[in-house]
Amino acid sequence: MKIALAQLNYHIGNFDSNVSKIVDGIRKAGEAGADLVVFAELAISGYPPRDFLEFDDFINQCNDALEQIALHCQQVAAIVGLPTRNPHKKGKPLYNSAAFIAEGKVQHFTHKTLLPNYDIFDEYRYFEPNRFFEVIRFKGHKIALTICEDLWNVQDNPLYTVNTMDELAGLAPDFIINIAASPFNYRQTAVRTEVLQRNARRYKLPLFYVNHVGAQTELLFDGGSLVMNSRGELVSELSYFEEDFRVFDLEEANRPGPDFERVDYTEIEAIHDALVMGIRNYFEKLGFTKAILGLSGGIDSAVTSVLAAEALAAENVYNVLLPSQFSSAHSVNDSVRLAENLHMPYDTIPIEEAYKTFGKILEPYFKGLPFNIAEENLQARIRGVILMALSNKFGYILLNTSNKSEAAVGYGTLYGDMNGGLSVLGDVYKTQVFELARFINREREIIPENIITKPPSAELRPGQKDTDSLPAYDILDEILYQYVEQRKGPKEIVAMGFEEKLVKRILWLVNSSEYKRYQTPPMLRVSAKAFGMGRRMPIVARYLS
Amino acid sequence: MKIALAQLNYHIGNFDSNVSKIVDGIRKAGEAGADLVVFAELAISGYPPRDFLEFDDFINQCNDALEQIALHCQQVAAIVGLPTRNPHKKGKPLYNSAAFIAEGKVQHFTHKTLLPNYDIFDEYRYFEPNRFFEVIRFKGHKIALTICEDLWNVQDNPLYTVNTMDELAGLAPDFIINIAASPFNYRQTAVRTEVLQRNARRYKLPLFYVNHVGAQTELLFDGGSLVMNSRGELVSELSYFEEDFRVFDLEEANRPGPDFERVDYTEIEAIHDALVMGIRNYFEKLGFTKAILGLSGGIDSAVTSVLAAEALAAENVYNVLLPSQFSSAHSVNDSVRLAENLHMPYDTIPIEEAYKTFGKILEPYFKGLPFNIAEENLQARIRGVILMALSNKFGYILLNTSNKSEAAVGYGTLYGDMNGGLSVLGDVYKTQVFELARFINREREIIPENIITKPPSAELRPGQKDTDSLPAYDILDEILYQYVEQRKGPKEIVAMGFEEKLVKRILWLVNSSEYKRYQTPPMLRVSAKAFGMGRRMPIVARYLS
Repeated sequence: MKIALAQLNYHIGNFDSNVSKIVDGIRKAGEAGADLVVFAELAISGYPPRDFLEFDDFINQCNDALEQIALHCQQVAAIVGLPTRNPHKKGKPLYNSAAFIAEGKVQHFTHKTLLPNYDIFDEYRYFEPNRFFEVIRFKGHKIALTICEDLWNVQDNPLYTVNTMDELAGLAPDFIINIAASPFNYRQTAVRTEVLQRNARRYKLPLFYVNHVGAQTELLFDGGSLVMNSRGELVSELSYFEEDFRVFDLEEANRPGPDFERVDYTEIEAIHDALVMGIRNYFEKLGFTKAILGLSGGIDSAVTSVLAAEALAAENVYNVLLPSQFSSAHSVNDSVRLAENLHMPYDTIPIEEAYKTFGKILEPYFKGLPFNIAEENLQARIRGVILMALSNKFGYILLNTSNKSEAAVGYGTLYGDMNGGLSVLGDVYKTQVFELARFINREREIIPENIITKPPSAELRPGQKDTDSLPAYDILDEILYQYVEQRKGPKEIVAMGFEEKLVKRILWLVNSSEYKRYQTPPMLRVSAKAFGMGRRMPIVARYLS
Repeated sequence: MKIALAQLNYHIGNFDSNVSKIVDGIRKAGEAGADLVVFAELAISGYPPRDFLEFDDFINQCNDALEQIALHCQQVAAIVGLPTRNPHKKGKPLYNSAAFIAEGKVQHFTHKTLLPNYDIFDEYRYFEPNRFFEVIRFKGHKIALTICEDLWNVQDNPLYTVNTMDELAGLAPDFIINIAASPFNYRQTAVRTEVLQRNARRYKLPLFYVNHVGAQTELLFDGGSLVMNSRGELVSELSYFEEDFRVFDLEEANRPGPDFERVDYTEIEAIHDALVMGIRNYFEKLGFTKAILGLSGGIDSAVTSVLAAEALAAENVYNVLLPSQFSSAHSVNDSVRLAENLHMPYDTIPIEEAYKTFGKILEPYFKGLPFNIAEENLQARIRGVILMALSNKFGYILLNTSNKSEAAVGYGTLYGDMNGGLSVLGDVYKTQVFELARFINREREIIPENIITKPPSAELRPGQKDTDSLPAYDILDEILYQYVEQRKGPKEIVAMGFEEKLVKRILWLVNSSEYKRYQTPPMLRVSAKAFGMGRRMPIVARYLS
């Protein structure tokens, strides 16, 4: 038996596009002589459809799409994910289902048993868990058809009291198929491989795994669909960060793994590729082509600009230099050099005149009070006004250039440099931004060396340095990692050897800037715990703040 | 037996304050000769604690607080809600629990069985459902202790496959206690009363119900704790929108209801009181006292200003008039009159000069292109810059004045009039804003009549009216209500008699402005479906858009 894995980039709610991609996959599978083609979890709707699932009309459209798809499955059978209605009186109204289609019609629906409801996942918001276990019988084989999380309850401290494969194993399946929507983070490949290995080994079954690829706003799906043999050895792997399609012989799933060489991504390479895909898909799926951003002379905007040029082509990235009286000459020169290195369009629009005008307007109210955060923010906001005016006039999407370290401690101006349709680096710590810059420059100096080596500064008052108000970034980032990603409390972090006063101040800063992060653009998610939909904090609270 | 109901306003994560309120409630209960005092769901942590629940340190602090509280329960028993750890190897790490404390120590933990995970609720994100049912035995009585949602599975189409009271009823309890965190919406009192009645009647048991009161960012808890007899008649009710404490004789719970007169709130009165509480608590709990807002001469900012004056006192509401060359004279005069009517501070800061400066700065880039949305947004953003400069300089919180109709269709400028720490009217349709204005003026003209009667206009170009680009608000709001609140699709709405082209355009506008709403301030929630945490939509999608 031949099984095709179709790793596709879906568009949420775009049924025309999703159906046409799936139908094309069925056609290709037929041409390649495959018996069965497998698509990802909720392929028909795109993932995550979120509250569109609460609209009857949306579910109807999913059903209609499935019927269209079924007509194309005369020769080739298919497995495709979609939401279906729960026909029972009790329980949530929907299931997260896999349709098994053969001979032109749906033969069976398998529903997801384990519904992730942590971090970015909200599946228990919509779906009733499956409680009834069956294998799919096809051409003399018994298939254990599972949906993503169904294979993930293999920790020592299991999150769920049921285990899908324990139930299915009793029915003596020949192999496992898992259709998934498993988003990327820079450590996810290793985690995912281990989880799948545990299943293959525990149940002594080969495994075919099909994941989503492509960006859905902040969520980045890396693909990496794969075939594993019953010893948990990786037999083959599809591409990362791009669509792929491959046909396997069932027997292949039982050859030993050694002749297969896995692509060895470093964390920074993976983050780089994920971010480029994230920018590209955000623009493509919204129907935009051109980005604008403020180039400050600092490393964050430099890296953002280069990533955007890779994603959208250099000529589509409009760099605006917005120097104030506090900007250093090297900031402007370095920025110009960067834009010219990649032949990106740029302009220089000084903000001093606007700053003076607002100074005059506000003078009767400010009455000689000393320069403080109000004047600092004013500069950032004037830049925001100019960038948005250009964005509105010419249809650019503004890219936000803040990094995760800044976002964490609230080091940024709301309605100023925190503006943007998409935050490229909002889940990338400052120390990782430096690594990205080094990675970008691995072959030649694209980002001028001076941008990487000079001490970070917001340049909002004379001689300002980030370290005036923040600790060195390597210390800051480690504390933030422990608090944000590892959810360690102050005592635990101090016990690791960090100064208590500093830890308390950082945690206070994080918690008291929730109100700022609430209003930031979506941030491309590359870590296991990003700000945004996967981290839900009260704004009005007094915990460690 | 005497039972005290303590309806309190908690502060999330503020253990000192929450413990001190609870201990004070125990003391008052003792003084009043009560045997038992009942506090709300997750009283110790405040509700909703959201992802603070993922921090071991936070759970430890909840445990410590419980131990402190228990020491005060020597004479009086208490029921108090908090998160507790799941000691079993399998399942989610926490329970949503009610501690029954007597004789100075915790005698029993009851865990919540039904975990709401829809709209604003995320309880399945954190908690394992209870599967083991027991009554509390106390002074010769058997108590069916339940937690909020445990009583809510009484619809014809139940959301859960288990029913807590069905399980407890077999143990022959004498009465029900329900501790809740049930947020307000303007139809919730009726719904809640009916749900509780169904329980009292179905199980023929009296019921003591304790709810939260007070605002937690956007969530407004209205209180309305109550006692119901076994015939489902309301015996007594605590206050709405304020803390309350009352002691009942168990026998009282079986007298018939007729001598009790329920406070009869209209929907608009309830919305009014909820919004005032929402503003007041937002400021108090964040430790702020003063608000700033832009007074445009329109009805939205007028109503926001009056509500803020009620919440914070008139002298703490700083109104800034920011006229442009497109502002009409009456807009300025009406605004001045409003501020003077309530003796609120105000200033007039024309924006024309700043507008001209940006015009000059942008001229080389705009190159004579016609006036469009870019110039309209520019005005709104200049206002945003000035308001935020004053906010930053003097420690005001900026109030956002957008209404739900505008927020729905994206009729507002990001980083301009969409700015603010808190959106007061973001869940109030324009037609409801008019009703609020009439309610505010019920005794005397606080809001100048002309503000209420003139045609709504953003005044961003000469002669502009809202109806230039939007249908009349009564039609718009009805379509929005069907789509946003009732989740009807285009076919269903057209079938109600609305013009197809209009319906499609409105739904398109709603779906294609998700990116704007993603960056708006939290909106005080007064409806059953507000924008914000209770409505989760993809930004990049192509459904009806």
